[in-house]
Formats: sequence, C-alpha cells, structure tokens
Amino acid sequence: MAELQRNAAGRLVVTEINGEPAVPYMGVGAYKPRGRKAAPPIARCADYPADGNKVVPDLKEALVRAGLRDGMTISTHHHFRDGDLIANRIFEIAAELGVKDLRWFPSAAFPCHAPLIAHLDSGVIHHIEGSLNGPLGDYASSGKMRGMGVLRSHGGRYQAVQDGEVHIDIAVIAAPTADPFGNANGVEGPSACGGLGFALADSQYADTVIVVTDHLVPFPCVPWQIQGNLVDMVVVMDRIGEPSKIVSGTTNITRSPDRLYIAELTAKFVDAAGLVRDGFSFQAGSGGTSLAFAIYLREIMKRKNVHARFVRGGSTRYLVQMLEEGLTDYILDGQTFDLEGVRSMRENPRHVHTNPFVSYNYHGKGNVASMVDIVVLGATEVDLAFNANVVTHSDGRLMHGIGGWQNCLFSRCTILPLPSFRDRIPVIVDEVTTLCGPGELIDVVVTERGIAINPRRQDLIDATRDSGLSITTIEEIQSRVERICGGKPAKPRFTDNVIAAVKWVDGTVIDVVRQVVPAP
Amino acid sequence: MAELQRNAAGRLVVTEINGEPAVPYMGVGAYKPRGRKAAPPIARCADYPADGNKVVPDLKEALVRAGLRDGMTISTHHHFRDGDLIANRIFEIAAELGVKDLRWFPSAAFPCHAPLIAHLDSGVIHHIEGSLNGPLGDYASSGKMRGMGVLRSHGGRYQAVQDGEVHIDIAVIAAPTADPFGNANGVEGPSACGGLGFALADSQYADTVIVVTDHLVPFPCVPWQIQGNLVDMVVVMDRIGEPSKIVSGTTNITRSPDRLYIAELTAKFVDAAGLVRDGFSFQAGSGGTSLAFAIYLREIMKRKNVHARFVRGGSTRYLVQMLEEGLTDYILDGQTFDLEGVRSMRENPRHVHTNPFVSYNYHGKGNVASMVDIVVLGATEVDLAFNANVVTHSDGRLMHGIGGWQNCLFSRCTILPLPSFRDRIPVIVDEVTTLCGPGELIDVVVTERGIAINPRRQDLIDATRDSGLSITTIEEIQSRVERICGGKPAKPRFTDNVIAAVKWVDGTVIDVVRQVVPAP
Repeated sequence: MAELQRNAAGRLVVTEINGEPAVPYMGVGAYKPRGRKAAPPIARCADYPADGNKVVPDLKEALVRAGLRDGMTISTHHHFRDGDLIANRIFEIAAELGVKDLRWFPSAAFPCHAPLIAHLDSGVIHHIEGSLNGPLGDYASSGKMRGMGVLRSHGGRYQAVQDGEVHIDIAVIAAPTADPFGNANGVEGPSACGGLGFALADSQYADTVIVVTDHLVPFPCVPWQIQGNLVDMVVVMDRIGEPSKIVSGTTNITRSPDRLYIAELTAKFVDAAGLVRDGFSFQAGSGGTSLAFAIYLREIMKRKNVHARFVRGGSTRYLVQMLEEGLTDYILDGQTFDLEGVRSMRENPRHVHTNPFVSYNYHGKGNVASMVDIVVLGATEVDLAFNANVVTHSDGRLMHGIGGWQNCLFSRCTILPLPSFRDRIPVIVDEVTTLCGPGELIDVVVTERGIAINPRRQDLIDATRDSGLSITTIEEIQSRVERICGGKPAKPRFTDNVIAAVKWVDGTVIDVVRQVVPAP
Repeated sequence: MAELQRNAAGRLVVTEINGEPAVPYMGVGAYKPRGRKAAPPIARCADYPADGNKVVPDLKEALVRAGLRDGMTISTHHHFRDGDLIANRIFEIAAELGVKDLRWFPSAAFPCHAPLIAHLDSGVIHHIEGSLNGPLGDYASSGKMRGMGVLRSHGGRYQAVQDGEVHIDIAVIAAPTADPFGNANGVEGPSACGGLGFALADSQYADTVIVVTDHLVPFPCVPWQIQGNLVDMVVVMDRIGEPSKIVSGTTNITRSPDRLYIAELTAKFVDAAGLVRDGFSFQAGSGGTSLAFAIYLREIMKRKNVHARFVRGGSTRYLVQMLEEGLTDYILDGQTFDLEGVRSMRENPRHVHTNPFVSYNYHGKGNVASMVDIVVLGATEVDLAFNANVVTHSDGRLMHGIGGWQNCLFSRCTILPLPSFRDRIPVIVDEVTTLCGPGELIDVVVTERGIAINPRRQDLIDATRDSGLSITTIEEIQSRVERICGGKPAKPRFTDNVIAAVKWVDGTVIDVVRQVVPAP
C-alpha cells in the first residue's frame, strides 16, 4: 500500500510513484524546483552518416538498434489522435522481441490504443504514464495495471521531461512528412495533422529518437517542426495513421439548445466584464460549447469593431476564418482540430505552430498561458470552492486526460461553461472527486441556471453587476440543480488502492485516483 | 609558460587554456566526447511576471539585476556586424560598476569593438574568446591580452556552450524586433539584420538572458527566432546598431580580373566534375570571389536546366534571385549579408532561418554542413598537404575569425579559390603558419595558375582529366608562384608566448597562435 501524505489542498496523496519519491502539491507557485534541467548525452556527427541519410529498413530494426530492452521508457505522441497506428505496432514488436516491463509515455492515449491492454496483461507494458481515456481508463480504474498511472498536463509532460523526472529511452515520433535526416513536419503529406509540438521534449531529451513517416521528401523538409539534428533514425512505412480519424475534417458546433445558450451566456459575460478589448486574446478548444462560444464572440467583436492580438488554438475552421477576416493578428496553435486548421498552418505565417514548451511549460521563464485574457474550458465536476475535476467521471472512473487544461488555468480569466447537470447528475458538487485545478485559478462558472463568479474576483463581480446577466453564487446554482435532480449526486465508491497520481503543472502531486468498486 | 603537447596534426599545442584542461586535436572524427550536455538551471513561471512583461528600465539595471560581478562570462553576437553598439555599452557599464576580469564571449568581433581595448587594459575584460579581428587581433598578437584567446568556428562555439566547456553567465542579445516577453527576430524593425541564429546557444544555456531592442512590438513577436520562454529581461533602447553598417545594402562582386577568372574557373571545375546535377546543393559566402562564383554557376545551371535543392547562405541578392527564379528550392541561411537577403528571409518561407546548431554543431546527430555538395571558401594560406589557414596573415598576426569555415570543410567537395599570391607573397606555402583546417578535408585549390586536386580525391581527378581545365599539382602551382614572387615567403617571427588557441569543431586544440615579434 502506498504511503500517503496530506498536501496543501487537503488531499491525501502518494509520496512515492512506482518507486520514485514524489513531492506533494504545495499550493499555486509555492514549489521551488532545485537543480538543473536534464542533460542528454553528447552526440557527434562522426557517428551519423555524412550524407544525412538515417533511413533504416523498418520499425523493428530501428527499435533493435535503439537497444530496446526490459524496463525502458518508450514515448509516442497523439498527433494522429484516434487514427494512430504506431503505438500499437511498437508494442507488438516489443512482444515479438520478448521485451517486458516497458513504461509507455504517450502525450495522450485514445480508444484506438485499446489493443495495448493485452500487452499490459502479458507484461510487455508495465504501466502507462499519460492520459488514460476510455478502455485504458476502465482498465486502470479496475486496478488491473501493475504500475501507478501518472496524469500530467501537456505543460507538465514537458516539465517532467525537461526536469529529468521522466527519462525517455526511445522516442518514436510519427510524422506526416520527413526527410532522411529526420527533419519532420505535420503540415504536408497524406496524414497531415498540423503540428508536431507534443513531441518536442522527446526530440530534445530522449536518448534515441526515431521518426516514422509515410511521406519521405528530399532534405530539407521545411518547416522542420522536429529538427533532424536531434533524430537518430528514420523509418518509412506505408501508413502511419488513418487519415479519417487524424482530423475530423469538420468540427461541428453543438446543436444542444442548452449548450448553445451557455456558450452565448459566456460570450455575453466576457463582453459585460470588459474583456473584449482591442488587442485582447482568448483560447477556446474543440468542444461544441467552446466552438459556439468562439462564434458568439466573433459576432460581438465584429459589432464592436474589436480585433484580437492572438487566439490560442486548438485551431478549427472558425478560428481560421477569424484570422483570415483580420479579426485576430495571429493564431498560436498547439494542435489543429480540422483540415482547415492544417491548411491554414501550412499556408499562413500568422498561423503559428507552437508547442508545450512555449505555451505551457511552468518551469520556464514564463509561458504563453498566463498572457491569455480569456480561456474557456470544460470540466466533469466543480465544487463550492471552484475546484474542478477533469479526469474522473461521476462514477469515479478515470476517463479523460488533462491535456492543456491545468496550464490554461493561468489565464487572466478562466471560465468553465458547463451544463448544470448531465444525465440528471449535478455537475456542481460539495467537493470534487479528483482535484485537477485549484479553485483559486477558476474565475467563473457559467451554467444555464446562472453564472457564478469566484469571490476572489471582486473585479469581475463589480464589472458585471449591472449587466443584466443572471450573476449568482455557486451555492445557489448547486441548490437549484439539486432540487431538479433530487439531491446531491451519489458518491463514487473506491477501494484504498491508488491507481494513478494527478500531477500539478510543477510536478507535485495534487491528487490521486483510486480503484473503483464496481456497481453491485 | 603554457605546457605544450604535440597533437595528431603534429602541432605543439597547449594542454591548458586559462586554467582549464584542453584536449589536443586527435584527427578528424577521432575524439569521442564523454558525458552529457550542459544543464541550465530550472526556472519557474512564478518568478516571472504573469502578464509576460519583462521590460526593465535600462541595460545597466538589467546587468545589475543579472548579478554582474567579477569573473563572469558575458556573451554578445555579431548580427549587427560592424554596426554593433551593444558590446561596447556593456563593458562601459561594467567599468562604471567597477566590475573586473570579465570574459567576453562574442560570436564574432569587428573593428567597431576597438574601444574594448581600453577595458582590456584597465582590467574590466580579462580576455576575449571569439574572433580577434583587426585592432583586437593586433592587440592580442602583440601579447597584451592577459588571458589566452580561444578561436572557435560558429559550430564550435555552439558545441562549446552545449557541452558545458563555456558557461555563459549573462547573454545580451541585441534584436531588431522583440516583444516584452522576450520573443525576438531580426527580420523586422529599423535595425533588421536577418536572422538571430548566432545567439541560439546563448539563449538556451546562459544563466541570464537579456534581450535588447530598439523596436518593441506587442506580444507575440512572430517569428520568434529567439524564444521568450528562455529570456529573463527585455531592454528597450533608442538605437542598438548603426543600420548602414549592419548590412551593406549592396554586396558587390569582385572587379579584379584575376579573381573573376578564378571564380569562373571554379564554376567550370564543378561543372566538369559532374557536381552540377539536378537537386544538388552549394554554399558560397559573401566574398567577392564567392559571389562571382555563384553568378557563373547560375549561368551554368540555366544553360543545363539544372536546379538546386538548397543553397546555404550567407545570403545575398544573388542567392535571393536564384530562389525567386526557381533555380533553388530553398535558401538555408545562417546570416544575411544584404538588405535583399533580409527582405527575402522576412517574406519567403523558402528562405529558411537557420542557426549553428542546425548547420554546424559537430556534437549533434549530424548537421547540414556535411550534406552540402559544393562549398567555396577563402584562406590566407594553403600548404602542400592542403592544410589551410584562415586566422593569421603572412606576417603571423591574428587578423580573422574562423566563422563557419571549419564547419563547411565537411562538405562533399570543398574548394578554395585563391589568388596564387597577394602583395607578392605566395599563398601556397610549405607548411601553414596556423593550422585551421586539416588537408584531408580540403579537396581542391583553384588559382589563376592552375587547379590542384587533393590526391585523396581520385574521383575528382578522374572526372576532370579530360575537361581541358589546367589541372596540376599543388607543388607545381607553388613553384610557379615562387618563381614570380622571387622565392618562398619570409616566415613570420614569433616569441614562445601563446596568445590564442585554435579549436577544432569538436573542441580539441588544433593549433595555437603565438605573439608576433615586431618587424625591426
């Protein structure tokens, strides 16, 4: 049984993760890292082909040359999202080679990775450090994974690699376009997905870096989102992803009248609060409500003749349209969600490819996230202290990764537009099941039954007092919803077994996730 | 007196440089570095302004906040070339603050830095590690600098910082455009100079990074050639460089009939050798002969209907023209030499900003230099073993930096087009005064009195045998020239005092430069 300690948020958390000591969360900005960044081994040109051709016959050969062996850490990336074909292939090869006890360190996992459960069962994979969505979340939540899962934000993943918390032995970077030297990008080729920023840390810090592509071009592959000077080998395959699942092709706004209403309320709120000023910035993700928010906001911007300095993506055709209409000077994009986003990133120098180092890494000399005026995010639960949960469902099962969510909380105004209940289960709870974001960083909760402003943000309360919007308290929204839903939601039932640790942006442990007791 | 050891090139070199042990040169590709890259301290966002505004009142304040004190290493860059106003200002401030014994670590020095001699005399600067051109070279050559100079190539400078050989305490990066967060580029603003790649290592590895600009724009400054996430402070000044000296505005080809003839011969040679093939690549610098070579080559390419995959800059309007005519797919540019180069880099995504890490660092997983088909370089002397000198003059005085010269030697065909004598002093000598480039990497010497191919390159000898070009031996050229000049050049006279070490691309010491005995 893991030893537990109460952290600054009052949560009992592990002090050790898979045999390594872990630091309990100390509060926002309280933890001071000591020491220096991870230092990769010094390479030399004499050990690489002078003609720059690093192509090896196949992925198995590359993994063998990389010295794949028991206990190694293998990283992959979610640029292909649910269309990824590489991660499963890596562990098939590992199984063929009889390798055991690997740590898989993806930037995110998707339902397409369900076949890895067999490798977890057989011992090829010891545990996964990364988001545990869908089937992998179920697997972990039922206590079947041998090691403890570790959930990190995109920025936290960069921080962990940069700070040497996670040492990657072999990084496999699937790239829609690459040259034989290893320069790679995601904007060209049949599997084009946009950027490759999630693999940046891996390319910089892993001992061995393998680029896998289905579209090899002569040197130089420009732009080089991944730099060939950091790459050891290049593998060419027929198909590295299923294009139809890489990007959705279209991103649709929500059709739910409730969600549209919440999105509209959110746009009205930021306008009323005076945040829609010339030169402002915002981030809205790919969810239906976020997209609808962006569309309502765009109408307000046009009406007021206001333009943004930058918009943070996940980009979609809606953001691209704003860029092309001159409603924003720039899109700073970590991840393109549709083909229009890919096209725009390829063609428009004002659609800027970013990465978690630039956008989110908390152990840098600042990052972009804290400069964003308005951020709109989702959550599975919010509690009366504005703490929010984004990884577990109301039944306690681990179902989502953190993504950039924790990192985005550092914006100047963080808003959670949420339906007040889902499947008749209230979203506002006394205390969140899993603490992912401290309430002090969450400024506003917008529901169809009222808008609650965090009491810490007296400025926002004052600014919107006479707005005509239904500003209320979070307690009031909670009680309204509980009346509708017939009371508080049932608490999920857990065993004492900790199945995953949730890291804060600074690498400390903000909470843990426990094994779920199956419904009787 | 420094202890000396004979290195693999037969040169007696120092085993210690300014109190640190130094490794003698072991041969091309022979030295295997051990250990890991330098590891900068871990920063955290909590210590930087959340609004991203890192502007401090002035450079003095920035240097004080950076903790400027005796014995520190201060780096600057030569993006403004002979128009730089920042390096002198830094050491003026250091003098005002009473700070002593600084190491100045520029990416290159220029005649505009002559005022630093006063600070070398007064003890503010202990010594300079970087090119010692013109007045600074004279100063060092006369034995007046307290510490030993260290000459490195552009790639060697990156390698030294990356490998932790040189720890930079404070990097001051003068940038034509920057935002308050520290993102910076060289393509916009009144002092636009092109790229800022020479400052990359400094931004990544220095303890404190200060960006100085005369053109502050709102966040984000795009493109960010220097990333704000690595920057501590931003200083805004009225003027950071003298625009007329930053780029020349025009770059002129040589008018000397001899040099034009040598350039034409060089172009004919590469054509005869079969190197001008579709998809080939070349690098030609900013010297008059190199420019003329590029123009002759362009005519051959047009005639043969051949296009290049990439051209390495130093870019000039001639290379830009080739890019715009479709004669090359890309310019990979480390340094723009004229305003057309700056414009092209700003406007054309196929004019790619590079840096010494990508192009030249020998301690990476390959670099661009070894993939270039043809490189045309200068030299002050070449000897019978094809060894070349690029730092000292025939009188033994240190007069030039290495620049990218050593790094470029790794190309597939390295050619030195040289006049066979200068001021009646033969350029081909029995043994070079200072060894900068091993003869095994120098393939061809083209002079107006014949073309000498390195006997190691039987392939080139075979390919050009029936070309009608005047292919001969280096010995034959030497004897022809000695007949004209009245014998071998006088040997420069040196004391035993070593005033500078010349590093090879891997950080080992390939030669030393001694104090010159003044002419009687």
